[in-house]
Amino acid sequence: MERARAERIAGVLKAIADPTRLQLLHLIQSAPDGEACVGDLTERLGLRQPTVSHHLKTMTAAGLLARERRGTWVWYSVDPDGMEAVREILRAPARTAS
Amino acid sequence: MERARAERIAGVLKAIADPTRLQLLHLIQSAPDGEACVGDLTERLGLRQPTVSHHLKTMTAAGLLARERRGTWVWYSVDPDGMEAVREILRAPARTAS
Repeated sequence: MERARAERIAGVLKAIADPTRLQLLHLIQSAPDGEACVGDLTERLGLRQPTVSHHLKTMTAAGLLARERRGTWVWYSVDPDGMEAVREILRAPARTAS
Repeated sequence: MERARAERIAGVLKAIADPTRLQLLHLIQSAPDGEACVGDLTERLGLRQPTVSHHLKTMTAAGLLARERRGTWVWYSVDPDGMEAVREILRAPARTAS
């Protein structure tokens, strides 16, 4: 695996290697229609709004979440391509010999 | 997701959220018979032996690698249960409504 690719993948993994972010990711995934806004998540986890917003911003930048503004609210959903990329990383590569 | 579970999973993800560890994991996975010893890995990545040993120890503690001593050498292989656990984490849970 080339160093540049390993660094990119490590960055994505770091973005979810945090208990609060994992909880947020699962809340969003299991929400009705697979989307949630900051207020919902803040209430569910008993966290402050800036804390939740910061975590969501980091995961969006890493390609794990998609965000969409509708009126005054921003809705977050899991980016299926981003999550698939992470799963793909963790799949065993072909061996050079058996 | 309960906090205790989120913390445990985050710990495993942190153990692989590092470019050198990802490179080591892929080298081991793609080695003949899926196992490698420290000397092989040191040479392939151009790293010092204590650095490689430290990374392997961390990944073994996280349940991602298995180690077996044969004679004077220690062989490392990917622990399939550990890797499957990580993949399982990243699978989308059932939604509460569609």
